[in-house]
Amino acid sequence: MTVFVRSGDRAADQLRPVRITRGFTIHAEGSVLIEFGQTRVLCTASVEEKVPPHKRGSGEGWVTAEYGMLPRATHTRSDREAARGKQSGRTQEIQRLIGRSLRAVFDLAALGERTIHLDCDVLQADGGTRTAAITGAFVAAQDAVRTLLAAGTLAASPIRSHVAAVSVGIVQGTPLLDLEYIEDSVCDTDMNVVMTGAGHFVEVQGTAEGAAFSREEMNALLLLAEKGIAELTALQSQALAG
Amino acid sequence: MTVFVRSGDRAADQLRPVRITRGFTIHAEGSVLIEFGQTRVLCTASVEEKVPPHKRGSGEGWVTAEYGMLPRATHTRSDREAARGKQSGRTQEIQRLIGRSLRAVFDLAALGERTIHLDCDVLQADGGTRTAAITGAFVAAQDAVRTLLAAGTLAASPIRSHVAAVSVGIVQGTPLLDLEYIEDSVCDTDMNVVMTGAGHFVEVQGTAEGAAFSREEMNALLLLAEKGIAELTALQSQALAG
Amino acid sequence: MTVFVRSGDRAADQLRPVRITRGFTIHAEGSVLIEFGQTRVLCTASVEEKVPPHKRGSGEGWVTAEYGMLPRATHTRSDREAARGKQSGRTQEIQRLIGRSLRAVFDLAALGERTIHLDCDVLQADGGTRTAAITGAFVAAQDAVRTLLAAGTLAASPIRSHVAAVSVGIVQGTPLLDLEYIEDSVCDTDMNVVMTGAGHFVEVQGTAEGAAFSREEMNALLLLAEKGIAELTALQSQALAG
Amino acid sequence: MTVFVRSGDRAADQLRPVRITRGFTIHAEGSVLIEFGQTRVLCTASVEEKVPPHKRGSGEGWVTAEYGMLPRATHTRSDREAARGKQSGRTQEIQRLIGRSLRAVFDLAALGERTIHLDCDVLQADGGTRTAAITGAFVAAQDAVRTLLAAGTLAASPIRSHVAAVSVGIVQGTPLLDLEYIEDSVCDTDMNVVMTGAGHFVEVQGTAEGAAFSREEMNALLLLAEKGIAELTALQSQALAG
Amino acid sequence: MTVFVRSGDRAADQLRPVRITRGFTIHAEGSVLIEFGQTRVLCTASVEEKVPPHKRGSGEGWVTAEYGMLPRATHTRSDREAARGKQSGRTQEIQRLIGRSLRAVFDLAALGERTIHLDCDVLQADGGTRTAAITGAFVAAQDAVRTLLAAGTLAASPIRSHVAAVSVGIVQGTPLLDLEYIEDSVCDTDMNVVMTGAGHFVEVQGTAEGAAFSREEMNALLLLAEKGIAELTALQSQALAG
Amino acid sequence: MTVFVRSGDRAADQLRPVRITRGFTIHAEGSVLIEFGQTRVLCTASVEEKVPPHKRGSGEGWVTAEYGMLPRATHTRSDREAARGKQSGRTQEIQRLIGRSLRAVFDLAALGERTIHLDCDVLQADGGTRTAAITGAFVAAQDAVRTLLAAGTLAASPIRSHVAAVSVGIVQGTPLLDLEYIEDSVCDTDMNVVMTGAGHFVEVQGTAEGAAFSREEMNALLLLAEKGIAELTALQSQALAG
Repeated sequence: MTVFVRSGDRAADQLRPVRITRGFTIHAEGSVLIEFGQTRVLCTASVEEKVPPHKRGSGEGWVTAEYGMLPRATHTRSDREAARGKQSGRTQEIQRLIGRSLRAVFDLAALGERTIHLDCDVLQADGGTRTAAITGAFVAAQDAVRTLLAAGTLAASPIRSHVAAVSVGIVQGTPLLDLEYIEDSVCDTDMNVVMTGAGHFVEVQGTAEGAAFSREEMNALLLLAEKGIAELTALQSQALAG
Repeated sequence: MTVFVRSGDRAADQLRPVRITRGFTIHAEGSVLIEFGQTRVLCTASVEEKVPPHKRGSGEGWVTAEYGMLPRATHTRSDREAARGKQSGRTQEIQRLIGRSLRAVFDLAALGERTIHLDCDVLQADGGTRTAAITGAFVAAQDAVRTLLAAGTLAASPIRSHVAAVSVGIVQGTPLLDLEYIEDSVCDTDMNVVMTGAGHFVEVQGTAEGAAFSREEMNALLLLAEKGIAELTALQSQALAG
Repeated sequence: MTVFVRSGDRAADQLRPVRITRGFTIHAEGSVLIEFGQTRVLCTASVEEKVPPHKRGSGEGWVTAEYGMLPRATHTRSDREAARGKQSGRTQEIQRLIGRSLRAVFDLAALGERTIHLDCDVLQADGGTRTAAITGAFVAAQDAVRTLLAAGTLAASPIRSHVAAVSVGIVQGTPLLDLEYIEDSVCDTDMNVVMTGAGHFVEVQGTAEGAAFSREEMNALLLLAEKGIAELTALQSQALAG
Repeated sequence: MTVFVRSGDRAADQLRPVRITRGFTIHAEGSVLIEFGQTRVLCTASVEEKVPPHKRGSGEGWVTAEYGMLPRATHTRSDREAARGKQSGRTQEIQRLIGRSLRAVFDLAALGERTIHLDCDVLQADGGTRTAAITGAFVAAQDAVRTLLAAGTLAASPIRSHVAAVSVGIVQGTPLLDLEYIEDSVCDTDMNVVMTGAGHFVEVQGTAEGAAFSREEMNALLLLAEKGIAELTALQSQALAG
Repeated sequence: MTVFVRSGDRAADQLRPVRITRGFTIHAEGSVLIEFGQTRVLCTASVEEKVPPHKRGSGEGWVTAEYGMLPRATHTRSDREAARGKQSGRTQEIQRLIGRSLRAVFDLAALGERTIHLDCDVLQADGGTRTAAITGAFVAAQDAVRTLLAAGTLAASPIRSHVAAVSVGIVQGTPLLDLEYIEDSVCDTDMNVVMTGAGHFVEVQGTAEGAAFSREEMNALLLLAEKGIAELTALQSQALAG
Repeated sequence: MTVFVRSGDRAADQLRPVRITRGFTIHAEGSVLIEFGQTRVLCTASVEEKVPPHKRGSGEGWVTAEYGMLPRATHTRSDREAARGKQSGRTQEIQRLIGRSLRAVFDLAALGERTIHLDCDVLQADGGTRTAAITGAFVAAQDAVRTLLAAGTLAASPIRSHVAAVSVGIVQGTPLLDLEYIEDSVCDTDMNVVMTGAGHFVEVQGTAEGAAFSREEMNALLLLAEKGIAELTALQSQALAG
């Protein structure tokens, strides 16, 4: 079987070039532009000094996410969700995933009764927008927490670990790391993996687009994801040290 | 570590009693009441002789699903989605999962330009409603296809394999098969697994509710799921032979 | 004029077989499956310890109803209202009728500041779903009140009388009791009548579908309704004694 | 028992002063301001040369109605439905009633494949808005048909009979004709009756607001309604002759 | 260049006949029917003893407006916004304009913590509905304030000046005052001007429908508007003196 | 009277630094990031080979705009319109303004039956987002037209003139050009002016936020706007020459 040839001669287990730009906009407590190759997502973290009803009086905070895609972030223009009057099922699924992923590394009691809103807006899409969003939102959340620490609002960080995400998939029989759009659109299996800095799983979402996949294929994909996420975690650390 | 004791002394790798009642209602081409213990889901399959816009003229058919829960299917009454004027993110996520799972075993070209609508309505909930829905929807879809075969509309079945689903999770350190509600509400990790009759994966959706999970825990959960789905597939066959 | 022949040789003034199954689901304070022939409606009564804004601080309770039909309860599949994002005018009309009918036999002051929600969901439709819903909701409401009495929350029942409903209509010149779907779809006049156990009217809603109807025809229909409701009231009593 | 004294010494079986002003606005094919005492409803009839989907290709036309109330038509301002983003259940119930009532006197085949839209907007409310709307919409529909006849679009009128409506009710034991707001708000039983010019029933909608009502009370109310509608029909004829 | 000839030989700088009828409906604190030729708008002012959230506790009141058009106020019937489930962009733009215009002459602190709702509903449209609405809403607001003064709720009027509005435009090269529909539909430039009784500008909204307009044309239009508004202010005073 | 001192010692008649970056994203036919100081708006132009219903078969094209603001483009986070399920009145007003402004310089017949969608999304807001959006959208539209010319789809450009926009206002008695947020929030009068490259007006929208403004003040503002727009037009030309 011939191995699938990736654009730019990228190796099967190689991430696209990743760029993390902190302070991309000026108003938010955390504002990060993250790029996975041509995919560009603006992630802002906003602190609000109140919590949703289900947390009121609990002493705990909340971390939540919203996701959007600009109408022409994609090859052909898609309808604006605000104009259509509702978010698609896909959008809701993704923003729920981002929110759960970030909450997994937060100590909500240590955060106190406040909310961190993570807004992930895709400026340009080329596959992997949800994994870039999670990886970038973590950096934005760190910056928001640093703001709270600097202001003395918090005495210690409520963040317990890194969290990052990557997609993996099988294209023409080859397991690949970090799919770009043309790979994603022809893959047989597509899996999004979210892991902590300690190498544990937060979310695994695998879908057979074409043929169902075997246990061996799954193992190969998880290995690739572990490698990719270790690299992304290092890149997050570099960016935060910068 | 003490092992978690399940209600009714159920073993960790044991399904709840499963009942599949075909022909539960009279109008639909396929109508199945599926019960996983106290969870009861009515799955109907309706054939419509047209396809959604993205399939028109393609020669291919479509299989789609909708999911709902009666307001008092749960311990406390929840709002009726029709009255609130929109489906929740959770509902949309589940119905998209059911649709993808069923399409995974359908040859859409062999179905021809028609749609099978799978409506999965939860009459009573006690955990695992989405996995029961997938497992029951498969039987309803089979009955709908048999109706088409009997009428001569189809010459051969477009269904290539069984599909069934089960939840697995880790509760107080113990990996468990087929979680009921009280287990689900305290579990650290919750995974829904959808597999074909041939033992391949269609969907794997694992979420760390509390602590992130290790690769070993994931392996243990997948083993349980494989066992459970093999049993569910056999129960589907029995029901269809009945 | 030839008399219209009903299915199963049913007499013009005869109800379809009625079955009332209490405790059909486990979570609700009252849960009743009511069947008028092939029409099957699940009626649950849920107690909530608060009232809507217009009753707050009044010392009075509230009784309200919602109605829904599963998409494939009918011969051809209808759109799911939750997916369409709104309830039809027909649905709202029916649920307002059910609510008014039940409130007619409740002493809201004796109920105290709590709400009884009646959810009437049609699992299978064959004409007369709204009248079956009212008749079944009464039994579910009784069970909910018994729960409150057993718990000592209420000292005496706030229910003052039975309430039940039946449809009557004129088909090909013949006045008929309890129309099934094929009768309903060809009738000239269709009337839904709701009465108390004491034989008084709570609601009368008559509509000329074809030709307008005379005073004599109206009288004939009301007589049939009185007979049918007396029988339904007796069946409610039997079920509640069971 | 003391008899209830009506405002302006109106007799129990007496209509409020009724005024029907044709040509109230200039653009519509029929435009009628109808007044039942202080209740004022603007009814316009608009002809559209197409029909809704369920009538396309049938050779038949359609007659439909919409109902609205200006926010300050009432004692206290109510929310604007367009701003709230949906019509209330009450609004939908009323506009369905108006539509059915008018269709009852139309020969839809004779109308041909066109639609008559009846818009009934309440400028000022003092009870009986739906019955005034039906009575006024009939006159507006007549004017629209005359426009079609004058233009030669229709050769003969598709209207087979008059249709008019009135409310009746029991207040403090006294059956009353044509309730105004303060009567309506205290009545025990409220009934809206729609009849043809030939004295047959099109709709009867009776509701016990307080105590359920007896057969005798119902008979008394229907007698009052027959009297009132005969007078309204005569007033329609006068207005149309003017 | 030939000068555009207006209907009824109206001069280029002449208003249409204006009629202001106070007390047009009985329930509102202020109720004015204003007519600019064939354009007829019902403006009601309703006092509510509370303010929207952004004014709570501020000691200041609020003045807000809503605008609507009856479906057949226009030559061809337009959809009812309440039925479509949302207000158009045009409607929102107009009601925001009316609200800002009226607030410009109100001392909100002197009004106290209460709201004046201005509902402007177009019964018949022939161009200039928004300017008629502003001009009429001012009179209705005055009547509502008089009600508050008469009741002793307010000791002094919070209204500091008149406000009125008129449209101006260039049709076939001729600047015209107070456009009617057929002029509006062919004009190159359309401008709505809102001014105080002191002759200062509150709003100027000019739009080039065809060719862009020069500074000289703008000056000519503003002169016309000043003349028209001075006349409208005088007519408001006359009506309020009546 | 002391003159208002602007941030960075900007002169009263001076624009903020303007940056126009073409090709900011890769998929759209035109993609421009425009910056007016700290205000940053991404404007994309997308070509679609069809037109809305009101233009079908007319031989003419259409140019339309949508506007959005990322939730944290502003000092405090605002709700996401897609999540709230509707666009605000302000959003609709702005996108209608952008659309009209661009159409004013397009020859729609020369465009042919296709649509240019202009999406203006505010990444960072500091006053003047709508005027930056119009100025940037013009450049994006030019790039889209060049794409059509290069592909031979169009033989000649349908764009007849430049269009650009700027805000002007009176702050503490001083007329200022191109208001930033802190100026905008305290200004008495706020005016948005849209002009063509030939120096003619397309739109003038002036609003008295505090005191109404005189004719002299208006003249001073228009002079400032003319100066600013001449500079913006030159900057557009430079960017397009680049």
